[in-house]
Amino acid sequence: MDSGIERRSRAALSRLMEPQDAAGLALVQAAGAVDALRVATGQLSAGPELEREITALLSDGGPGTSWAGLAASLKRWHPRIPDLAPERDLATMARLGGRLIIPSDELWPVQLADLGIQEPICLWWRGQEQPLPGAATSIALVGSRDSTSYGASVTGDLAYSLAQRGFTVVSGGAYGIDAHAHRAALAGASGAVPTIAVMAGGVDRFYPSGNDDLLRAVSNQGAVLAEVPPGSAPTRYRFLQRNRIIAALSAVTVVVEARWRSGALNTAHHAETLGRAVGAVPGSVHSANSAGCHRLLRDGGAVCVTDAAEVAELAGPSGSALPDPRHGQAAVQDGLTLEDLILLDALPLRSVTSVEKLSVVAGLAQYSVRAGLGRLGLLGLAVPERGGWKRGKATG
Amino acid sequence: MDSGIERRSRAALSRLMEPQDAAGLALVQAAGAVDALRVATGQLSAGPELEREITALLSDGGPGTSWAGLAASLKRWHPRIPDLAPERDLATMARLGGRLIIPSDELWPVQLADLGIQEPICLWWRGQEQPLPGAATSIALVGSRDSTSYGASVTGDLAYSLAQRGFTVVSGGAYGIDAHAHRAALAGASGAVPTIAVMAGGVDRFYPSGNDDLLRAVSNQGAVLAEVPPGSAPTRYRFLQRNRIIAALSAVTVVVEARWRSGALNTAHHAETLGRAVGAVPGSVHSANSAGCHRLLRDGGAVCVTDAAEVAELAGPSGSALPDPRHGQAAVQDGLTLEDLILLDALPLRSVTSVEKLSVVAGLAQYSVRAGLGRLGLLGLAVPERGGWKRGKATG
Repeated sequence: MDSGIERRSRAALSRLMEPQDAAGLALVQAAGAVDALRVATGQLSAGPELEREITALLSDGGPGTSWAGLAASLKRWHPRIPDLAPERDLATMARLGGRLIIPSDELWPVQLADLGIQEPICLWWRGQEQPLPGAATSIALVGSRDSTSYGASVTGDLAYSLAQRGFTVVSGGAYGIDAHAHRAALAGASGAVPTIAVMAGGVDRFYPSGNDDLLRAVSNQGAVLAEVPPGSAPTRYRFLQRNRIIAALSAVTVVVEARWRSGALNTAHHAETLGRAVGAVPGSVHSANSAGCHRLLRDGGAVCVTDAAEVAELAGPSGSALPDPRHGQAAVQDGLTLEDLILLDALPLRSVTSVEKLSVVAGLAQYSVRAGLGRLGLLGLAVPERGGWKRGKATG
Repeated sequence: MDSGIERRSRAALSRLMEPQDAAGLALVQAAGAVDALRVATGQLSAGPELEREITALLSDGGPGTSWAGLAASLKRWHPRIPDLAPERDLATMARLGGRLIIPSDELWPVQLADLGIQEPICLWWRGQEQPLPGAATSIALVGSRDSTSYGASVTGDLAYSLAQRGFTVVSGGAYGIDAHAHRAALAGASGAVPTIAVMAGGVDRFYPSGNDDLLRAVSNQGAVLAEVPPGSAPTRYRFLQRNRIIAALSAVTVVVEARWRSGALNTAHHAETLGRAVGAVPGSVHSANSAGCHRLLRDGGAVCVTDAAEVAELAGPSGSALPDPRHGQAAVQDGLTLEDLILLDALPLRSVTSVEKLSVVAGLAQYSVRAGLGRLGLLGLAVPERGGWKRGKATG
């Protein structure tokens, strides 16, 4: 098969069908992209066998799908047929220094196959051609548009450190948390693709316009992707569908700040459905912008993450990540037996005491006190002085 | 059996043995308190059968216990025998308006039996005689001594609201989170026992002295309890042991603020061991005083709690708690099908559009657009105007 036809067909299908059009995706799976486009545009008529196959594929997808038959789908697609111009769309991308990739391409992110029938038909890609990262080294940082200074600061720290460690930071290119994530990842860039923005609308226009410079920088150093063709408006429906791609590209989806109701939670649920790890950053219980994160923590799907090391740990194959040495040093007395701990408590800090007195205060036999003082002495926790004992300096 | 002897024996045993002295508790379980005291003080010699029984009880307790035989324990207890004066201790408590309770008493909190062999031998109780609450209505609020203003504020809100709902707030009487918990519970008091302080030292002296007024108020309205007799110093060992009583009294242990290494985490681990719920309050990832809470959330043992309703939900038998209605109202568009959501996105906010244009923009057949507009119109999401349609005000 001419791969040019396959590419042009998928380009056209991505304009004909809304993202995750279940019947459309089933048609593509059953007939292949080239014939699917012919069927969808009325150039080829579908027999009853194809219709049966689509019905079977849709019922595999669960009972949520209402399938009114191919005729209904054809009516839905029909109004858009006059708008199809895949060559023009491909030329637009080439002019912008971009391209279209399809699942059979070398450059296609293989982890998207985990979406099953919901895998995008194609991806419109603005940015230089380079290998995109696999799931293991991609981490999604998502959250509210109206982020607080706390959210901005945490996102900046996480994205910068993750990029420094060679991870690709995936986000949605929006204001707030998304923008902070892209910006800090660019600043921390150490590898080839520091950050990827997955857009809800066409990549020919950067949206929102206030992020124009930022998204231009993302496309220069990283990648800006969308499943909808150039010229597509970023509708609410497309935002929700776009979130599944962010989740599917990444090993971990971290929600940094989100209100009780937030699109970022939708991305987290996609990640959970895919069996990917979900992290949530805790915050003040008084901040409405952390309520969504706390909801994720409460509902049990998300792991509490407070720094880049903990996020990286979620991305690593279990057991391979090294424990973070930053947290607290063991106190000298941590390994003591209960008896020695009692004895340590009984030792005065300033004055000197006798074995007899310690025996009474600690409730230990004198021979136990002597043995214990020996052990504590070795640790510097007890010090002999003027024929008695006092607490050592190591106690802290 | 004369219950006066039982009471006096347990009073004496609580001075002879440190809290959770495994061999001592096993001896009490095997021989009963009265004979246990006689054996421990050398008035009665233990036969090999008693020793075997104690060994069996101790091996039930797991491999952690080192048991060097009864002779070793007798040597440990021996130095304290001259100090035993149970009548004096009981008289002290009576003078302070308090009492001693033992497991056979009506007033004994039955939930302490969940501690098994680690159940306290007795409790010294300062405060007026009144029924103590069961586990279902007791909630432990614990945390750092060096609390932040955030911790103080959250603890105050939680304790006040919980007391208002009729819960008893259990804590340790220390500075910081403990003090805020007791104080706010007293302020919110609606039931008989708003708050209980479980002390690591004797209840004859309020410790720390800076909390003297507060603990006096707790003993007046609630209860101040300890398993160690009057005059006992609050040693580090006793603090750790005391924590198991706080956990065992309560249905839920909530850690409001705690450093990475904190005694409050010890209380949480006791609660977990007992199969009781553990809650952790999230906070800023930049606050060292929340690091312990986040650790609990990460390790998976704790549930994220952000207000009194969520804490109460943990205390309630599962399923009986009503969902909290506070969180977000459903948006009008929440129940829409994907098709109607696409259509809603396609509707312009200010201008008016036609069914034909909507059909192209939304990628829906014209009959679907008409049917969808009818449904959206009923919800106030679409409004007919000048022969066309625009977005309704209900969209928000």
